[in-house]
Amino acid sequence: MRPHARHEVRRTKARARYERETVHAILDAGRIAHIGFAVETPSIPPQPFVIPMLYVRHGDALLLHGSIASRLMKRLGDGVAACVSVTMVDGLVLARSHFHHSVNYRSVVLFGRARAVDDTAEKAAALACFVDALIPGRAAESRPADRNELAATMLLRFEIEDASAKVRDGGVKEDPADLALPYWAGVVPQSMRCDSPLADPSMEAGAALPPSVLRLLSAQEARA
Amino acid sequence: MRPHARHEVRRTKARARYERETVHAILDAGRIAHIGFAVETPSIPPQPFVIPMLYVRHGDALLLHGSIASRLMKRLGDGVAACVSVTMVDGLVLARSHFHHSVNYRSVVLFGRARAVDDTAEKAAALACFVDALIPGRAAESRPADRNELAATMLLRFEIEDASAKVRDGGVKEDPADLALPYWAGVVPQSMRCDSPLADPSMEAGAALPPSVLRLLSAQEARA
Repeated sequence: MRPHARHEVRRTKARARYERETVHAILDAGRIAHIGFAVETPSIPPQPFVIPMLYVRHGDALLLHGSIASRLMKRLGDGVAACVSVTMVDGLVLARSHFHHSVNYRSVVLFGRARAVDDTAEKAAALACFVDALIPGRAAESRPADRNELAATMLLRFEIEDASAKVRDGGVKEDPADLALPYWAGVVPQSMRCDSPLADPSMEAGAALPPSVLRLLSAQEARA
Repeated sequence: MRPHARHEVRRTKARARYERETVHAILDAGRIAHIGFAVETPSIPPQPFVIPMLYVRHGDALLLHGSIASRLMKRLGDGVAACVSVTMVDGLVLARSHFHHSVNYRSVVLFGRARAVDDTAEKAAALACFVDALIPGRAAESRPADRNELAATMLLRFEIEDASAKVRDGGVKEDPADLALPYWAGVVPQSMRCDSPLADPSMEAGAALPPSVLRLLSAQEARA
């Protein structure tokens, strides 16, 4: 790697990862991307924006979608320099000292540019991917987008040019002198959980949950 | 509000909130801030960075901390224009059409600038706030930072100049024509949960959990 590339992690380097599989695995586990880019207007200097968006990883790219009426989507789709970060917290790290308190986390930072995808078939396929990213198998349990819906949807493809990941896992780090202190130390793991599904009021009472939701719930039960 | 201010929500305006209490409540419930700002080097044009960081809200400001050796912290502390986004996902919204699939979420976008805080007492108090933000009451159960730790810590105060929140909650939105489709529709609520705490191997076997962790777990049980 060239020294001091924009994606080189320079603090707590022991937590840095650059392997594509690690970056992909974190992206595939995440839900929300925070996308940063500058917006310029004639009257004010470039202003950074950070916008949360759903995303789907597609090879070495992220797919993003929004309304064709969104000025921020348009700006992004113009191919401005952008940076994307995806972060998940996996636990609270409780040390005997304030200083060593931390969280376990997985994060990626990506550098690249987005371009609009106008092909209707690609847009329809991408929308199905977004649905399956919410819950695998759900796209087959709902109606694909029609022509009007596709026309109202802006699809962007963000090509990952450089990427790094940072992972903190495992236990507490302590100063040896602190080990004698009368304080509890340890990790409280955290994770996202699903609560009981709420059927839409338009559903018939007692309607069975669809296979996608049942699989999600049973996978969760198996992990618990 | 002035038209088209940088923090004015211009898409799905029905989800927009500007009241300070709403913005504060979302910030107080969140854990990770994604902070965007431009980094310039002599050889390349301004490059946006988005960095995930722990934070604490302090009035109309966010406190951020990191190592004094961090170039990104230094850059931020120079008072460059920055944008901060905090987002939480509260559920999966499963519609009868791909197009109306969504997530329930709470997010804020803040505009402002950060400044370094050098006062040692303020830094010590801020570190205690960070610990209590992880788990309320935990600062009293661990050792405050000493002089060396404070000297190694960079504390930034990000003043919120403009803020907006966006909230999607409630049920599924459907096209009336889709109501007859044979698909399940509803919401799968999601939330962060704690799993069983893992005591550090240095702890005596059977050591009691501290009050802060016990309160966290019983509050979680009460919600379930």
